[in-house]
Amino acid sequence: MSSRPVITLLTDFGSKDPYVGMMKGAIAGICPEANVIDLTHEVPPQDVRLGAFFLERAHRFFPPGTVHVAVVDPGVGTRRGRIVLEASDQFFVGPDNGLLSLAATSHRAFLLTRARYFLPSVSHTFHGRDVFAPVAAHVARGVPLERLGPPKPRIVDLPWPKPRKEGRAIAAVVVSVDRFGNLVTNLEPRHWESLRRPRLSIGRFSASRLSTSYEGVPSGELAIVFGGYGLLEIAARGASAAVALGVGVGASVRLAGA
Amino acid sequence: MSSRPVITLLTDFGSKDPYVGMMKGAIAGICPEANVIDLTHEVPPQDVRLGAFFLERAHRFFPPGTVHVAVVDPGVGTRRGRIVLEASDQFFVGPDNGLLSLAATSHRAFLLTRARYFLPSVSHTFHGRDVFAPVAAHVARGVPLERLGPPKPRIVDLPWPKPRKEGRAIAAVVVSVDRFGNLVTNLEPRHWESLRRPRLSIGRFSASRLSTSYEGVPSGELAIVFGGYGLLEIAARGASAAVALGVGVGASVRLAGA
Amino acid sequence: MSSRPVITLLTDFGSKDPYVGMMKGAIAGICPEANVIDLTHEVPPQDVRLGAFFLERAHRFFPPGTVHVAVVDPGVGTRRGRIVLEASDQFFVGPDNGLLSLAATSHRAFLLTRARYFLPSVSHTFHGRDVFAPVAAHVARGVPLERLGPPKPRIVDLPWPKPRKEGRAIAAVVVSVDRFGNLVTNLEPRHWESLRRPRLSIGRFSASRLSTSYEGVPSGELAIVFGGYGLLEIAARGASAAVALGVGVGASVRLAGA
Repeated sequence: MSSRPVITLLTDFGSKDPYVGMMKGAIAGICPEANVIDLTHEVPPQDVRLGAFFLERAHRFFPPGTVHVAVVDPGVGTRRGRIVLEASDQFFVGPDNGLLSLAATSHRAFLLTRARYFLPSVSHTFHGRDVFAPVAAHVARGVPLERLGPPKPRIVDLPWPKPRKEGRAIAAVVVSVDRFGNLVTNLEPRHWESLRRPRLSIGRFSASRLSTSYEGVPSGELAIVFGGYGLLEIAARGASAAVALGVGVGASVRLAGA
Repeated sequence: MSSRPVITLLTDFGSKDPYVGMMKGAIAGICPEANVIDLTHEVPPQDVRLGAFFLERAHRFFPPGTVHVAVVDPGVGTRRGRIVLEASDQFFVGPDNGLLSLAATSHRAFLLTRARYFLPSVSHTFHGRDVFAPVAAHVARGVPLERLGPPKPRIVDLPWPKPRKEGRAIAAVVVSVDRFGNLVTNLEPRHWESLRRPRLSIGRFSASRLSTSYEGVPSGELAIVFGGYGLLEIAARGASAAVALGVGVGASVRLAGA
Repeated sequence: MSSRPVITLLTDFGSKDPYVGMMKGAIAGICPEANVIDLTHEVPPQDVRLGAFFLERAHRFFPPGTVHVAVVDPGVGTRRGRIVLEASDQFFVGPDNGLLSLAATSHRAFLLTRARYFLPSVSHTFHGRDVFAPVAAHVARGVPLERLGPPKPRIVDLPWPKPRKEGRAIAAVVVSVDRFGNLVTNLEPRHWESLRRPRLSIGRFSASRLSTSYEGVPSGELAIVFGGYGLLEIAARGASAAVALGVGVGASVRLAGA
């Protein structure tokens, strides 16, 4: 463990209530030296899928030893499991509902059953504060995962749309719409590079030229670009591509080769 | 004092302007080792009542020695007092307008009058940055409260609705509506437990079964649950209870025993 | 360098996506001891002018040695320069598009060309994470600016409206509208003090009395006050002055002397 371990938080709690602050209070009481970083708290309520996507994309920018706490937890209070994973030198703490499964594909998993690592009083409805944050703080202090509960051989896997090869084309989808209205697809650079003279189509829009900037893109016009997630995006200069095309998450994208 | 004292911030400044950032700059110049944690900055403008409620609920999750700065301050620039309180091994800094009074019920109080603990230049309109943040940083460094100004025997108390016993029933109210549209009441577990076969009524909704999760609650249906504030909430699965019932803060809630 | 250097972040990335979190991950990997402070991430998309204003106003509340990272960067991926400045014992990192020019008027400037101070892989579209955040972390660790690239004798200057003397009056403008709907002008206390019996006019509103608080201002009435930015503001008690007057950024303001 570093002398200043990193703990990240990703939730659907928003910023209106002091819920995230309460989680940080719980952490400060256990691991005061932790560097607590917010990934985002604006996951749409109960959107496990989008939370899993954000975590998968963001965790790779964090140093070894980072403990990621993710709480998008429609099943809180039910018998859904609570888990901690170790994967690629990082740790992941949260509900066993698929939320952690995209980021931590290959992992060692343990159930969280030892109440001594929780807050003294555990509510039915706020395991983020009462269970996951304290456990993360203990992991950041170096508590071995084995002490937190029994091994969990299998965790819930989130189904995630992968681009599908269809002859000389690849069928893909929009997986997220960012603040600027950019349509984020599930296409990686390798998909683009696997085709000869690739051409992307979505709705009424189609393009074969990859932009590296918005220079030269007329205002309001659409362009395709590899964005901040490392994925192919359809973007409109100074406007929302989502609005311009009238599409959103789940929309079909086609990448056709020559 | 811990080697890394915790300072929390609660304001109605929002996140659009760099006001909160300025407060943190002032703190960093005085107590660089502080761990500064946001409770929330989305208190509705000048809603002292809701700010006081958030602080009262959140402070209990913080370690001893924590310094809480709260700024919801419609009277900034008037002769309203500026105070620091010590209560239950924590510190509270802010305007004397009731904002701190729910969290720090039993306390030692001092007026903030010694300008040497403020920023060199104090504006009329931003005591959060020029007075309260610097004072909190000095308190976090261990400055005794006595040095900050004279004792203040009485502070302004915020009136707060307490559940009222009415025969075999308890009259309560909605005190907050959270991000999910859950209606947070002022009912604690002890109120529920004090009645035989309690039944909650609000508007056209009534229920006697306490849920411990949303499992089994049909989508869109209302349920009652002890939520993240430790208070009884009326929640709708995957929907807003506030919208479903058409009620908000101040709405009457009745808990009737058999 | 202090043992806990301060890095501030100002962007137009919002809080919906984990973009800011990724920047903080990049910093944590290089300078784990940094105290990273958000100025704001709610600059309207690509509003370089407002970002520059926020940075200029906020940086003065930070201690010497602070490294400010600002990213409002419509030209990302084009040939616009990437720079680091030293000014008044602080550091400024960002695109060379005028964003840093209001805060760092007199400075030493260097181009960012040495890829060893970037993330290993630099995208076309997210220099905030891949270039600016890592460079700031290295500067916070004490890397001399000379090592980051060649000197840059001239940077892009942002045109900024200055109050203009017109006979016995001063012509000014609204430069920002804050969360409360207050109209922030570019008038400093010295402008007010330079006139005999000054009278401010904007739209249909005119006033000669400077308020030091909202006490005595009837609810909904307009008042003028020096606000959190240290600039003259038109504010409405418990309401939005911007809505009340139907004006916004760029609106003309006139300060007339007797």
